[in-house]
Amino acid sequence: MARVVVDVMLKPEILDPQGQAVANALPRLGVTGVESVRIGKRIEIEFAGTADVERAREIADKLLANPVIEEFTVHLPDGDS
Amino acid sequence: MARVVVDVMLKPEILDPQGQAVANALPRLGVTGVESVRIGKRIEIEFAGTADVERAREIADKLLANPVIEEFTVHLPDGDS
Repeated sequence: MARVVVDVMLKPEILDPQGQAVANALPRLGVTGVESVRIGKRIEIEFAGTADVERAREIADKLLANPVIEEFTVHLPDGDS
Repeated sequence: MARVVVDVMLKPEILDPQGQAVANALPRLGVTGVESVRIGKRIEIEFAGTADVERAREIADKLLANPVIEEFTVHLPDGDS
């Protein structure tokens, strides 16, 4: 089994209220120095044979990301692209 | 500004119906060879000064992950830990 990771994040120009809620909660919890927080999705796809990055990109494009508001990157688990 | 990434995934023993729904949809879309799909969260924390991995770990522990069902890893954006 081989794993490919797809990271889906909102585009920078799209507001992220969930991330803002976390960022706003931090000072109340005594954590300072955080400028912003953005929350996206991490999807791990396990392939039966070898890791197929191109196939994973196709799945992300069709099914995992909304291209109007999101952008995604596909990579192997250790951060290699 | 310096970014730290927190990846939050369900523990392996916890069922992931959202990921299963994606995995089940793939053969209908003509994509084969995928064994399983798991969907978690990717959180990007921007620090005002330098990237503070320990501070990010504290935030993840307090606010971002539910330790009963989730596990998290904290790393710098390029995959360095």
